[in-house]
Amino acid sequence: MCRAVIARLAPAVGVVDLTHGVPRGDVLAGAVMLADCVPHLPPGVSLAVVDPGVGTARAAVAVRARLRGRPHWFVGPDNGLLAPAVAACGGAAAAWTVPVPADLPATFHGRDVFAPAAARLAAAADPGSLAEPLDPRALRPLPLPRATVGPGRLSAEVLLVDGFGNLSLAAHPVDLRGAGLRPGERLSVRVEDPAGAGGSQVHPAALGRTFADVAPERLLVHIDAAGRVAVAVNGGSAAERLDAGRGMPLTLARLGGGRSGAL
Amino acid sequence: MCRAVIARLAPAVGVVDLTHGVPRGDVLAGAVMLADCVPHLPPGVSLAVVDPGVGTARAAVAVRARLRGRPHWFVGPDNGLLAPAVAACGGAAAAWTVPVPADLPATFHGRDVFAPAAARLAAAADPGSLAEPLDPRALRPLPLPRATVGPGRLSAEVLLVDGFGNLSLAAHPVDLRGAGLRPGERLSVRVEDPAGAGGSQVHPAALGRTFADVAPERLLVHIDAAGRVAVAVNGGSAAERLDAGRGMPLTLARLGGGRSGAL
Amino acid sequence: MCRAVIARLAPAVGVVDLTHGVPRGDVLAGAVMLADCVPHLPPGVSLAVVDPGVGTARAAVAVRARLRGRPHWFVGPDNGLLAPAVAACGGAAAAWTVPVPADLPATFHGRDVFAPAAARLAAAADPGSLAEPLDPRALRPLPLPRATVGPGRLSAEVLLVDGFGNLSLAAHPVDLRGAGLRPGERLSVRVEDPAGAGGSQVHPAALGRTFADVAPERLLVHIDAAGRVAVAVNGGSAAERLDAGRGMPLTLARLGGGRSGAL
Repeated sequence: MCRAVIARLAPAVGVVDLTHGVPRGDVLAGAVMLADCVPHLPPGVSLAVVDPGVGTARAAVAVRARLRGRPHWFVGPDNGLLAPAVAACGGAAAAWTVPVPADLPATFHGRDVFAPAAARLAAAADPGSLAEPLDPRALRPLPLPRATVGPGRLSAEVLLVDGFGNLSLAAHPVDLRGAGLRPGERLSVRVEDPAGAGGSQVHPAALGRTFADVAPERLLVHIDAAGRVAVAVNGGSAAERLDAGRGMPLTLARLGGGRSGAL
Repeated sequence: MCRAVIARLAPAVGVVDLTHGVPRGDVLAGAVMLADCVPHLPPGVSLAVVDPGVGTARAAVAVRARLRGRPHWFVGPDNGLLAPAVAACGGAAAAWTVPVPADLPATFHGRDVFAPAAARLAAAADPGSLAEPLDPRALRPLPLPRATVGPGRLSAEVLLVDGFGNLSLAAHPVDLRGAGLRPGERLSVRVEDPAGAGGSQVHPAALGRTFADVAPERLLVHIDAAGRVAVAVNGGSAAERLDAGRGMPLTLARLGGGRSGAL
Repeated sequence: MCRAVIARLAPAVGVVDLTHGVPRGDVLAGAVMLADCVPHLPPGVSLAVVDPGVGTARAAVAVRARLRGRPHWFVGPDNGLLAPAVAACGGAAAAWTVPVPADLPATFHGRDVFAPAAARLAAAADPGSLAEPLDPRALRPLPLPRATVGPGRLSAEVLLVDGFGNLSLAAHPVDLRGAGLRPGERLSVRVEDPAGAGGSQVHPAALGRTFADVAPERLLVHIDAAGRVAVAVNGGSAAERLDAGRGMPLTLARLGGGRSGAL
């Protein structure tokens, strides 16, 4: 329905659906998915709606940033959803609050507030004509989870699960290096018991570059296409294998015995 | 594949996917979803295919209506799917039957009949060149379920379940008023046992405006973005909580004890 | 994200999403789905990525064929995915390998290799400017499963399962004729036990033309919109009813007793 609204208000504007796969109400996952798109976005307006606080006092905002030397807009709720993407563009150059009329339905601002604002900005409307200026420093930030690193060991939360069941962690190559873990090394992957009932499962894995670096159905730890440490299964689903999902903490640790390319 | 057909026959025409989420074969749900889009549609042609009778004698039709003072087309099977949307436009101004060649595959008229007709109409073809005139009064109507209202009580069927598990009922604000139910009031939500095995579950809820009007994980009754009475869970899925789905009857009743904003 | 890449590199190019429903890593299913689209494609570039070997030595290729007298491109991994579609166009007129820089992320060539190449070809780039010529005879073929036919009996693998649970088999009208099975005839559908544990279920069906040729909830064998023998349930899901999925072998056999239009 948001697409219909945009087509009605800005018929000449092209629209790309970045994803419809954000877990419901998961602002952090949506924020990371949007930020992951930033290097690949065409110039224009990015509309994002993950909005569990719809209809409350949280502001609707439009943020102007710069992407490859050109202005780029982000439109969405001011609940942190836009923050990592705006940061990936080098920060906000300017911001506006989009007014929310009191008589609107209170549960679908995507259709009634955000899509119309995005459409009008994409059609080159003057933001001052549809919104009030806002100090960009007042935009709500989004603290991202970070990895914990020790000798031969790295713990991090699952940030995203993709449609293949690959687990993208809140960890980066610098964290692997900090832990002293090196390509080809054998690791254990431990899923911390989400129920806290004591006990957790340990799975052997290898630190590689692509799925085929491990035998079919074996676990791979690698740097994924977003530049994060990730856990995958060659030809399978790491989420199913580990029974792991968004937000769950994983620990990767050296399994001992040095390198092996033949896991 | 319908999109490919349209791109081939009408390459300059923009296309918006309204939904791919109609439960399979559910003409009523599809009809309601399409009618819900009407106020937001750009001018043009709306193609809808929920067609359990594909390949039978049911007609393929094109209907011309008016939307915001401009002609708007609906194309689909004449099984009631288009009726509520056409009604939302104030009724059919004219109608045509689209011929179905006998040698077509009998199970994918979306690709072979409806998408080509919609594409040609969108590309401004004269409908007389591709279809036979039909008396609009001969179009098949679609009776919509209605709410039953008594003092402090409202019963209605679940018309739609969205991707968040929100339950949109066949009831409107006028029904709430008829039942004497007022904002802030505490209600019970009873799911009538679909198996008819006697017994049914009762859940406490509050009549509010948006999700955050109830505590996390609590039930909210509200007017949804389609203007219908709906049942939701703040931060959760009402469909899962109530184990309720499309077509199931729900009863909302005053729980006693007057208003409460603090459920 | 591939859509974003294409919009960035070729903003004037229209894009149609053919499907996002290929079972993960299933090259054969993806290849058949793409080939099924061929008769309906607009002229241009077809991008397909089902790529379990991403990051390995498998080549990235662009293939030029002819579709309705015009050049048409296929871009994807050289793992057989493109082969049936190219064959449906009458074969490859020319081919190129798309270079894969060594420093790319190793798991998302859809975004980093294939979408950029497809976008540039769609924007009329000279293929020689972005790829190396390749002898089309060196492209990897894809052997398709074939039906086994005997008197009154046909065995074939489930090639595709659609969103309705319809089972499209690796069999064609010629196979039905070879088995001597005729419209209206009653058949048994036997699912060979996938676990090989002995035993298999048999379901009665009728050979018809469209879903309504059998009573609600009854099994239909028919020629589907791709021109293959298929098993469906009128108003239901054959996949659920038979507990059958992609790749499983089914046997259709005459049930005896001659024709019946009244199953």
